[in-house]
Amino acid sequence: MDMPAPLPIDLNTPYVAVDLDVLDRNLRVMAARATAQGLALRPHAKAHKCLQIARRQIDLGAVGLTVATVSEAEVFAKAGFTDLFIAYPVWASPARATRLRALAEQVSLRVGVDSAEGAQALADAVGEPGVEVLVEIDSGHHRSGVQPAAAGEVAAAAARAGLQVTGVFTFPGHGYGPCRQGQAAADEAAALDQAASALCAAGVDATVRSGGSTPTASMADPEALTEMRPGVYVFGDAQQVELGSCAWPDVALTVAATVVSGSGSRIILDAGSKVLGADQPTWATGGGRLPDHPDAHITALSEHHSTAVFPEDAPVPRRGDIVRVAPNHVCSAVNLADELVVVSGGREIDRWAVAARGANT
Amino acid sequence: MDMPAPLPIDLNTPYVAVDLDVLDRNLRVMAARATAQGLALRPHAKAHKCLQIARRQIDLGAVGLTVATVSEAEVFAKAGFTDLFIAYPVWASPARATRLRALAEQVSLRVGVDSAEGAQALADAVGEPGVEVLVEIDSGHHRSGVQPAAAGEVAAAAARAGLQVTGVFTFPGHGYGPCRQGQAAADEAAALDQAASALCAAGVDATVRSGGSTPTASMADPEALTEMRPGVYVFGDAQQVELGSCAWPDVALTVAATVVSGSGSRIILDAGSKVLGADQPTWATGGGRLPDHPDAHITALSEHHSTAVFPEDAPVPRRGDIVRVAPNHVCSAVNLADELVVVSGGREIDRWAVAARGANT
Repeated sequence: MDMPAPLPIDLNTPYVAVDLDVLDRNLRVMAARATAQGLALRPHAKAHKCLQIARRQIDLGAVGLTVATVSEAEVFAKAGFTDLFIAYPVWASPARATRLRALAEQVSLRVGVDSAEGAQALADAVGEPGVEVLVEIDSGHHRSGVQPAAAGEVAAAAARAGLQVTGVFTFPGHGYGPCRQGQAAADEAAALDQAASALCAAGVDATVRSGGSTPTASMADPEALTEMRPGVYVFGDAQQVELGSCAWPDVALTVAATVVSGSGSRIILDAGSKVLGADQPTWATGGGRLPDHPDAHITALSEHHSTAVFPEDAPVPRRGDIVRVAPNHVCSAVNLADELVVVSGGREIDRWAVAARGANT
Repeated sequence: MDMPAPLPIDLNTPYVAVDLDVLDRNLRVMAARATAQGLALRPHAKAHKCLQIARRQIDLGAVGLTVATVSEAEVFAKAGFTDLFIAYPVWASPARATRLRALAEQVSLRVGVDSAEGAQALADAVGEPGVEVLVEIDSGHHRSGVQPAAAGEVAAAAARAGLQVTGVFTFPGHGYGPCRQGQAAADEAAALDQAASALCAAGVDATVRSGGSTPTASMADPEALTEMRPGVYVFGDAQQVELGSCAWPDVALTVAATVVSGSGSRIILDAGSKVLGADQPTWATGGGRLPDHPDAHITALSEHHSTAVFPEDAPVPRRGDIVRVAPNHVCSAVNLADELVVVSGGREIDRWAVAARGANT
């Protein structure tokens, strides 16, 4: 596969560019994979936060969208998306109750719960006739979610509170690490199986068993899952390349940056953590990567500088040159930008608003 | 000093709160310190990006503002601020030339340069009668800037290109680390001295010798510096507390977060890296801190979750409780927010737009 064309050089840097041809290929590949696996695809919109990309996902067969927050759900509901899953143990505080009730009346809404208290607060907030919920389980990432064996208890409490419990979900986030994807996918399948049995024992059918992440999507077990929720696959990023989930030609989103300083094999770019995000897991090789210079590494990130170091004998871009930078974690980079510059064949063809930027509540 | 009052609980979390009384005290303390040291104070506005805070700084005697980008300068120029220093080796690309020219006509503008090529591009961009520049030098942070001894060469090239070279500047960023502030302040003074001599030898007066950062501000050498540019001091953050630059009662900006999940001594909050930022230097104790629970640590950050672990015998906040989180690096947190909720005595009294949010170009 060829690398995408170079980015336009006549715009103010840094800017966030999306190669439409690469994006569309990524969308088609994941849609076809879900179909081949017999899984419903409910992509996580927190990765792109863009109405235009969400529409493309639905047009390619996605059953609905996943979102992380009530305010993300509000943005997509307002834009006409009708099937939304807030895959988060939402705490239905009084400030959020009215908003949740309005959403539940407007769209087919599904919400995560991981405790009896959370379920009761949610039921009180939405009132009659309740709302669909999935019980979140911990498949090994050790963040939110209950242990699979405890899922029945939460499901029963949620049902008693008046919510429609339709199944279980998990995020196998412990697959974010070198060579951990296979184990995480196996953990995910085992945890969803066990949780579904726990629901059954509590008298609740686990019709929906939702999992998935970009690194584990190709290994999602169709015997255990009914649905998957990858997000990052639309763009790819340096983390996904370093994890082996995609290759450089699959990375659709990059930041165009200008070389502003440097000496010898070290250059300073005008894209820092306020554009790329500061995510840097311990296993990452740096603060992002340069897809056109895969042997270079970003050894330091400040807010408006990144320091890229090249191999000693490699040609080094000069002051004023524009280079493409792949952020480590594309979700963070997108959430820093107000708009994405859409390019095709090296030309700007559109701008897309990051409609749900900063939608954290 | 007492801790600020608790935050309002009737707002949707997460939200970014600024305690006005703490903020105003921080502003007064730094203004008084600069006066006592005989240094001009030119605070870095990238930390707050707020017109209201910049006005307070000027009202307390700041000589002007420092900004990081042309677009930050544009925001503050449009709001009526008249003396702006872009402390960055701006690359005056054709796309930026018109903007720089407009700024130079509108305000008293100062720009950083760190190469003859950069100076020439800037001179070509702004045309007659040029613009004031400072030569950036590297005092030990090893990012942009030339070695002090090379400053004269860059200054001479800039002067030949038609720019008004008035001095030198540096950012002693290597002071961001435990027990490194003293050395960084000494390096800063030595480097500015050496660079000023280099300019003198090249026939250029270094009237302005600008340095400073929040961790080194109290050690800035008035023999070597004429001006300092701290930024973070307005708010403080977890990094500054861990560096010893301030204490918890001095932290003016915190994120209000709700406990949404957890078990035992571990709680999950609804403020993640999309609100707090993902900055975590190797010496930090976690992904942020809880000022009201200084023995707790944030052991993991996802986009919408933070995991806080409490000592085994400590009381742990319950689901639905609201806690205050201090981000590691407040500049990143501010740049993620569209507005700051201004509180005093535990009540919301105003909202301030983060006017220069995302102003990266």
